Amino acid sequence: MKQHEKEQLLQIVKSSEKDIQADISITHGRRSFLRNTVAMAGSAGMLGASALANAQSDVLPIPESNKTMGNQLKFESYGVPSKYESNVKRRRSDILVNKQQFSDWSMTPIQSTPGIVTPNGLFYERHHNGFPDIDPDHHKLVVHGMVAKPLVLTMNDIVRYPTVTKFYFMECSGNGLTDWLTAKSKTVQQTHGLLSCAQWTGVPVSWILDEAGIDPKATWLIAEGADASGHFRSIPIDKMLDDALLVYAMNGEMLRPENGYPLRLLLPGWEGNVSIKWLRRIKAGTEPWHARGETARYTDPMPGGKWRKFSFVMEAKSVITNPSGGMQIQPGFNEIRGYAWSGNGKINAVDVSVDGGKNWQTAELEEPVIDKCLTRFKFNWKWQGGPAQIVSRCVDSTGYVQPTVADIQKVRAITGFVQHHNGLFPWNVSSNGEVTNGIG
Amino acid sequence: MKQHEKEQLLQIVKSSEKDIQADISITHGRRSFLRNTVAMAGSAGMLGASALANAQSDVLPIPESNKTMGNQLKFESYGVPSKYESNVKRRRSDILVNKQQFSDWSMTPIQSTPGIVTPNGLFYERHHNGFPDIDPDHHKLVVHGMVAKPLVLTMNDIVRYPTVTKFYFMECSGNGLTDWLTAKSKTVQQTHGLLSCAQWTGVPVSWILDEAGIDPKATWLIAEGADASGHFRSIPIDKMLDDALLVYAMNGEMLRPENGYPLRLLLPGWEGNVSIKWLRRIKAGTEPWHARGETARYTDPMPGGKWRKFSFVMEAKSVITNPSGGMQIQPGFNEIRGYAWSGNGKINAVDVSVDGGKNWQTAELEEPVIDKCLTRFKFNWKWQGGPAQIVSRCVDSTGYVQPTVADIQKVRAITGFVQHHNGLFPWNVSSNGEVTNGIG
Repeated sequence: MKQHEKEQLLQIVKSSEKDIQADISITHGRRSFLRNTVAMAGSAGMLGASALANAQSDVLPIPESNKTMGNQLKFESYGVPSKYESNVKRRRSDILVNKQQFSDWSMTPIQSTPGIVTPNGLFYERHHNGFPDIDPDHHKLVVHGMVAKPLVLTMNDIVRYPTVTKFYFMECSGNGLTDWLTAKSKTVQQTHGLLSCAQWTGVPVSWILDEAGIDPKATWLIAEGADASGHFRSIPIDKMLDDALLVYAMNGEMLRPENGYPLRLLLPGWEGNVSIKWLRRIKAGTEPWHARGETARYTDPMPGGKWRKFSFVMEAKSVITNPSGGMQIQPGFNEIRGYAWSGNGKINAVDVSVDGGKNWQTAELEEPVIDKCLTRFKFNWKWQGGPAQIVSRCVDSTGYVQPTVADIQKVRAITGFVQHHNGLFPWNVSSNGEVTNGIG
Repeated sequence: MKQHEKEQLLQIVKSSEKDIQADISITHGRRSFLRNTVAMAGSAGMLGASALANAQSDVLPIPESNKTMGNQLKFESYGVPSKYESNVKRRRSDILVNKQQFSDWSMTPIQSTPGIVTPNGLFYERHHNGFPDIDPDHHKLVVHGMVAKPLVLTMNDIVRYPTVTKFYFMECSGNGLTDWLTAKSKTVQQTHGLLSCAQWTGVPVSWILDEAGIDPKATWLIAEGADASGHFRSIPIDKMLDDALLVYAMNGEMLRPENGYPLRLLLPGWEGNVSIKWLRRIKAGTEPWHARGETARYTDPMPGGKWRKFSFVMEAKSVITNPSGGMQIQPGFNEIRGYAWSGNGKINAVDVSVDGGKNWQTAELEEPVIDKCLTRFKFNWKWQGGPAQIVSRCVDSTGYVQPTVADIQKVRAITGFVQHHNGLFPWNVSSNGEVTNGIG
């Protein structure tokens, strides 16, 4: 932020100061700071003069922690968050209850994750029959089918290859499906929490296929997991040769069990379910295999009762995470923050509207802005106190503009169990500052 | 990697294939994959033809995990690493045993952290009298001294400011101090593990000082923690107005208790101990306060028996993390990997030598390369099987070249308890592939 912009901002803040006692209204149990950034009173600090202390002397109250012997780390243990942050955790959907006991998902609290790194302990996951407990010493990857030299690789083999490390987002094809036409989910964790981002480490699939001597006539590959659902998908060879990775690490450590330990496929920018977890084989052929995930699941209804079989790419999308559903804001300064991402490239721009899309203003993008990675946007807003509707809209590096739901309905049928929702998503702000789902 | 480079690499690998059974020799208990990337046999996959399977048919062995109902996540809990990775954890120094029970540190296993994100559960920490358990609802930051308008800010106030999120490394001034002239520590976790990196979120200190109306005559500020040691340091105002942040989040979640929860100072590129944790006050004045950390600790011995009081900046430094002490490598292809960083800017280049510094070759830098952040470097090495000494050397964006210890000795005294070690650090590789500390 430039100096004159900062001065303007401070001016906005100070001109709108009100000494309001916070009325903290939170959806899920004990609050955490980040979820409630905007739920707090505008009564102190930059936001007001009323709480400026009588701290004119050096005689400051000494907190108890300055007088009490501190805690010792449990040395040589893996660290955990503060007990005061126990509210920040993955959650199920409140709306879509899956009756199959072992087929479920957990959603990331994206209202509480600043920056572009999703902590591994909060990374979203979805599985079709539980997640397996795989001893990496016994795990093997087989590469076969239309190859000159079939391979069986152990994990020890795979980690000896030269490494590639990249930031990429991961998004479930079903992210947002509860809220196409009617407001159902209450929080952004439940509308958009099947979304996370990590720095991944692994080996390009192209190297492995090269080594196996892939037949030039091969056009499709199958990737299959070692889990109890035997989840598998057919993948066009072009993607496999482009930027697909075999990954074994995320965010500086080995994959978590629910995210594919010890090995998963990563297809950057594509729907999460094709990035097969617990990967045990890749087979080359000349046509797709008609997997359950390509017939009963992950297909899109089209006009005229037809269904589209493959919708791999997660197209450009954005959502405001702060303020978002379940929060309460105060008049005056509020920073609007959110994520934007595109399976087709970088985010070029994000616009924000505070009047439901009538007028748009440019948001700031936070560096680094990376291809097929979450990008943070920010917008300084002075809320005047009346009803408002806040919504974001992104443009990616191909020039594609995030569509409205009405735009999407021109080319697709929005009926039943519809995936691949990348429409604009508004939040309503009521006169008393309550933020709620603004769909419909 | 370009196509012709990949082909060259595959050629190197294939021409050096040996079907050697791994002799896994690891320092700390059960192995993890990443620590032992180079300790595995070169007997399969890209590294050899001997393990290529009889996988010619589609009849592949079905692993038990495909036939057994999987685990369910403990929903709404915070995730943890696989039980097979329990070896990857923070550790004390084996060499430098601190007799003060509550003054200690834990070191990051940087041989096991690919990429530039250190998982928060593995982030290094150092404290002087334990770490406090602070309820964020009761924590306050006081800004006083030479300011027009003293401030008392609650955490709720602080998180309402516009946010700034940045990647920065954090390094203890004492990182490497056990191994200036004699090889003592066995692993890179113990020689260089007081080093981590995160994406931090907070508020520029300059905004807070601006709001408090900092006196133009103020030249130094004090920052003090709310821990039982009352650790505090004097900080020049120029740094505070440049890039200093008040941070409350790291890597997508609130600070961990041992890393300053709920609020710490962050002075990018400076020695870790000035980035005061559990921050409770900032006071403006006209001279340094002669803190214990500026007299009994964190000072540098100089020639002639004098001591230098302030050595804030962590100057450009690099270290090879793979292979490193305690690992065992096999003849043929080995990827040399490591970190480079500079408190003065970006990393411009890293060179690697495999003959103890006689000849140098350019390593590849992995994107993103960010100011005052860890940068990953990689170098493809064909080990011929004889004794070798591997070492890295970096150049930062100011043109500064990482010095040898002999270079440093020309201007500083290396005696006693010497901090701020940024000298070149070699690892010896013996004829049988054992990797050991190469100092002295």
